[in-house]
Amino acid sequence: MASNLATLRVTGPDGKGIVASCSNLLDRHGYGIFSTEHWTERCEDRLFLRIVFDKESSNDGKDVAAVIGDDDEEQRQEQVNNNMIKNQELETPSSATMAEQELAAFCRDRNLQFELNWRNKKPKIAIMASKSPHCVWELMLRHQAREIDCDIVAILSNHDELQPVAETFDIPYHVFPITTENKPDQEVRQLTLLRDEWNVDLVVLARYMQVLSSDFLDAFPDRTSIINIHHSFLPAFSGSRPYHAAHARGVKLIGATAHYVTPILDDGPIIEQDVISVTHRDGINGLIRKGRILERNVLVRAIQAHLDDRVILYKNKCVVFGD
Amino acid sequence: MASNLATLRVTGPDGKGIVASCSNLLDRHGYGIFSTEHWTERCEDRLFLRIVFDKESSNDGKDVAAVIGDDDEEQRQEQVNNNMIKNQELETPSSATMAEQELAAFCRDRNLQFELNWRNKKPKIAIMASKSPHCVWELMLRHQAREIDCDIVAILSNHDELQPVAETFDIPYHVFPITTENKPDQEVRQLTLLRDEWNVDLVVLARYMQVLSSDFLDAFPDRTSIINIHHSFLPAFSGSRPYHAAHARGVKLIGATAHYVTPILDDGPIIEQDVISVTHRDGINGLIRKGRILERNVLVRAIQAHLDDRVILYKNKCVVFGD
Amino acid sequence: MASNLATLRVTGPDGKGIVASCSNLLDRHGYGIFSTEHWTERCEDRLFLRIVFDKESSNDGKDVAAVIGDDDEEQRQEQVNNNMIKNQELETPSSATMAEQELAAFCRDRNLQFELNWRNKKPKIAIMASKSPHCVWELMLRHQAREIDCDIVAILSNHDELQPVAETFDIPYHVFPITTENKPDQEVRQLTLLRDEWNVDLVVLARYMQVLSSDFLDAFPDRTSIINIHHSFLPAFSGSRPYHAAHARGVKLIGATAHYVTPILDDGPIIEQDVISVTHRDGINGLIRKGRILERNVLVRAIQAHLDDRVILYKNKCVVFGD
Amino acid sequence: MASNLATLRVTGPDGKGIVASCSNLLDRHGYGIFSTEHWTERCEDRLFLRIVFDKESSNDGKDVAAVIGDDDEEQRQEQVNNNMIKNQELETPSSATMAEQELAAFCRDRNLQFELNWRNKKPKIAIMASKSPHCVWELMLRHQAREIDCDIVAILSNHDELQPVAETFDIPYHVFPITTENKPDQEVRQLTLLRDEWNVDLVVLARYMQVLSSDFLDAFPDRTSIINIHHSFLPAFSGSRPYHAAHARGVKLIGATAHYVTPILDDGPIIEQDVISVTHRDGINGLIRKGRILERNVLVRAIQAHLDDRVILYKNKCVVFGD
Repeated sequence: MASNLATLRVTGPDGKGIVASCSNLLDRHGYGIFSTEHWTERCEDRLFLRIVFDKESSNDGKDVAAVIGDDDEEQRQEQVNNNMIKNQELETPSSATMAEQELAAFCRDRNLQFELNWRNKKPKIAIMASKSPHCVWELMLRHQAREIDCDIVAILSNHDELQPVAETFDIPYHVFPITTENKPDQEVRQLTLLRDEWNVDLVVLARYMQVLSSDFLDAFPDRTSIINIHHSFLPAFSGSRPYHAAHARGVKLIGATAHYVTPILDDGPIIEQDVISVTHRDGINGLIRKGRILERNVLVRAIQAHLDDRVILYKNKCVVFGD
Repeated sequence: MASNLATLRVTGPDGKGIVASCSNLLDRHGYGIFSTEHWTERCEDRLFLRIVFDKESSNDGKDVAAVIGDDDEEQRQEQVNNNMIKNQELETPSSATMAEQELAAFCRDRNLQFELNWRNKKPKIAIMASKSPHCVWELMLRHQAREIDCDIVAILSNHDELQPVAETFDIPYHVFPITTENKPDQEVRQLTLLRDEWNVDLVVLARYMQVLSSDFLDAFPDRTSIINIHHSFLPAFSGSRPYHAAHARGVKLIGATAHYVTPILDDGPIIEQDVISVTHRDGINGLIRKGRILERNVLVRAIQAHLDDRVILYKNKCVVFGD
Repeated sequence: MASNLATLRVTGPDGKGIVASCSNLLDRHGYGIFSTEHWTERCEDRLFLRIVFDKESSNDGKDVAAVIGDDDEEQRQEQVNNNMIKNQELETPSSATMAEQELAAFCRDRNLQFELNWRNKKPKIAIMASKSPHCVWELMLRHQAREIDCDIVAILSNHDELQPVAETFDIPYHVFPITTENKPDQEVRQLTLLRDEWNVDLVVLARYMQVLSSDFLDAFPDRTSIINIHHSFLPAFSGSRPYHAAHARGVKLIGATAHYVTPILDDGPIIEQDVISVTHRDGINGLIRKGRILERNVLVRAIQAHLDDRVILYKNKCVVFGD
Repeated sequence: MASNLATLRVTGPDGKGIVASCSNLLDRHGYGIFSTEHWTERCEDRLFLRIVFDKESSNDGKDVAAVIGDDDEEQRQEQVNNNMIKNQELETPSSATMAEQELAAFCRDRNLQFELNWRNKKPKIAIMASKSPHCVWELMLRHQAREIDCDIVAILSNHDELQPVAETFDIPYHVFPITTENKPDQEVRQLTLLRDEWNVDLVVLARYMQVLSSDFLDAFPDRTSIINIHHSFLPAFSGSRPYHAAHARGVKLIGATAHYVTPILDDGPIIEQDVISVTHRDGINGLIRKGRILERNVLVRAIQAHLDDRVILYKNKCVVFGD
């Protein structure tokens, strides 16, 4: 997305005039709207709305310290608990514009959750990986080509192997060897970096072959903070060695799935999936080879959707707006 | 689309508040909006907007004869000329609601074109085909399965072969044998049926192997009145015998393209395309066989996009909103 | 496949000279070989070979009653038990050529199983279906277009709905309403037709919503006698209502799988699979609609592979040679 | 392909016993055959055969200096002219086995061309590229992952930009700035390296934005020595700026094509093609971005097919056997 663009996402019970009100509010504050996508799930009457607008088109009070009343703060906190406002926004109330305050008021009235992302600073991403280099290379190269719009703060691994990839791109590389005994301690050390020191916005598991403990996951209460790539077409072949399982079953397509991580293994909301044909000639190594292309592309597409604010989580599913 | 839904499409120069105004207008008249998709092409600053709303959710003056002033009618006529209002709407000014009048006024102010389709009656489609049955069968079966929401008024052919297909579905079948000499006369007779007698909304060329004359095309001034399926990935292999040409070139994929028909052969705005892999083992007959699946699916998807009012024509291209 | 072509399939432990011997044998008897595909699975050192040859290119003793010794018959019976020779061949020993006898001797020596299909008569297929028409229509139309090379002897259903489809193509339609109580009796009656009266070569379950009992399956000892289309990407969403399960899981692709039927539900060897993208906008009905296109195409491709003798079963998997 | 495997490709007029004779010949010399693929194009009665065998399974005279008579050499030279034996084989006549001599004799008798590749040394590849890094990165990474089985001897470019990529993988990088004036001289200098100094087996144009002169091409008389990736679905949008042309035409899919280079621009035999969907939202930059994924995958697949000896050229087309 172009650097002048900001995004608004809104979700909650449908009702009269939500799209008009949100559009109108941005209009009134001078923001030129570039793209609008709204869809109401009719079984549950639930609205999903995403608006992309030009934040530079307004002379609005963006740089004026906003006054936010107690009510607003209470509402904000509730939204944080509802995972609709990210920490960094809380920490910078001064950037809250009049528009944002009005939105908060409107959404509170309507029982809506919203996330207004000014995109003033690049999100911070950390990558966790084990030995397989293909996903990490892909992330680095697509980042270098400006197709993934973020700061990559570090690569964390339980092995040495990917150090050279990190060095190629001058990215810090931290090794945390994991054993059954030291895993809790190592996770605490990892969290110290990820959360306390760097305050990352997103953790990407780029073929990280360790299952994260629920303690680790609890440190990221936002359910969209960790994206994993699983090398199968979920829910088929969840768990370990999916290519071996696919080969044993004799499937004619193999797949890859990018999903947000939840405490239940390979069960999180699916962001992106793809498949590729295989034949009887493809042994397990053939599946692994063909699967690599899938994994890296599916992972990148999921990260792009996430970073473009095109994903809205609802229950255990992702609404993913078009790019 | 569900039978209670209506669509609004708007296009023209972008400007402040268009999405909000259109949404607000429908809201005010009581229409529940189900889906909104808006996109502004930034090079030319041109807006494309499609709103799907529940026409039954309003108590508005739909059944009250609307009073339309001269200005409005003038505006309407202009829009007709601009291909944004279909004939049937002109013929039923009494169904024009207050909402429609307000929209007309708003769009006139903003120099926008709009099409408000209440979808109160099914569009009328005529199919033209020659000897190949696969596209005609597909249209009939998908229509029977309620995946193509229209009335199929007749099949016109220059041959007898498809008569049994028409009979299976109780559709009138009209044969117009074409020779170089009689072609102008036959086209006049075809037009008499299509336009004067049936007043069809859409003509579908489902592998009709005759090139329509410019006189024929002139009888449908709306540039979105005729959809053709071409059996190649345009612009490659335009013209006749594309599978032979594809075979001669040794391509590894063959394609099909559905497009609106313009006076220049195979040059009209593309609605939908798809491809399928072929190998050296596929002779010309293999390409033809594989291509049939493409042709019928691509044609149906294009017709569905058209009938769902998901297409907005701009210059020589189609903006096709998601389904 | 062209009507003059015959096929030989061979499988078993790899060894020196198998491809050469089989090719040479056909050469010596005057058969022009059109296509050869051979692959040795190296983990188990198991050979899979398929040869397509022109049966009309020889003056060989095809129409001379062959003398088959006891040994040969014993060998044949063993092969039948191994599922490599079909019943019809047993019943017509007079059509066995010299080539076939030599092949039998060679394969016995090498502990190989072979199937030599002269393709002198079209295989007989029966279709079983319930209410959904799309797969049955597809089979009928592709058969009419000569893309499925067989005789369709009848459609069996537990409902009336598809009678008109059968009538359109002059195919006998037999209704066997199924209740929990009458199911065993009805299956016996179905088997009387399928096996005793018609002696069908293949039963195609074209969205037949009844699970066949193991007694029914036992009546077809050849493990490649029944093909089913399942409306999911197996092994994901086996069992009933897969589209509902896919919708609940929030997958981004839905699939269809054609497989041979075994006593374990949805667990048989997979012949063909395909997927299609879905979005959050696709409700369950959207998945069902999109899935129909998959189901009918995947089912036809699997039947074509089967009828072209391109499938060799090994353990729980299908080796499917290229078309 | 595994390091113990060798390949035989044979093409020419079909005739009795060719597959059997070639298989038998390898069998007799003790080579275990792993895979056979044969297909006869029936319109021209032309045979295409590829056999993969285990070169280590024989005790044959591989390391015995073979005696090759004048006839054989004459035959070899003819085959070289027919592009079926590569230079390196000519240079090492001592490695020619008894098997090879017999094959030569057999093929001479039958007017067949053959290429027997012992795969004893890795082919040498040079990459030519301009400024776009994505294809070069892909080649390097897939080479590093052992998915492209060759030695990459150097990257040649007309610009400095890709130097860091070369350094990452310790590959020599040679810059030849091209102007209209110096182009002939620079090509001579390039040829001195490519042909005289390195004697490369394959030149890969990985988004090299210069058209090679016919003098340059003449230096590689083997028509399969240069592979180019073109960023469109040929024959659509040949020539320069294909994404701009695709955008202007409003296509709904964009493509990429890998082909052998011939004197006519973008007209060479196609090895591999693929496409990806685009929408109205994708501007030219969007097409370029989406196209990169295609280009690099299509180029790698074509190189893999070439290096696996899966391609047989015939007239202006490629027969590409399955992987």
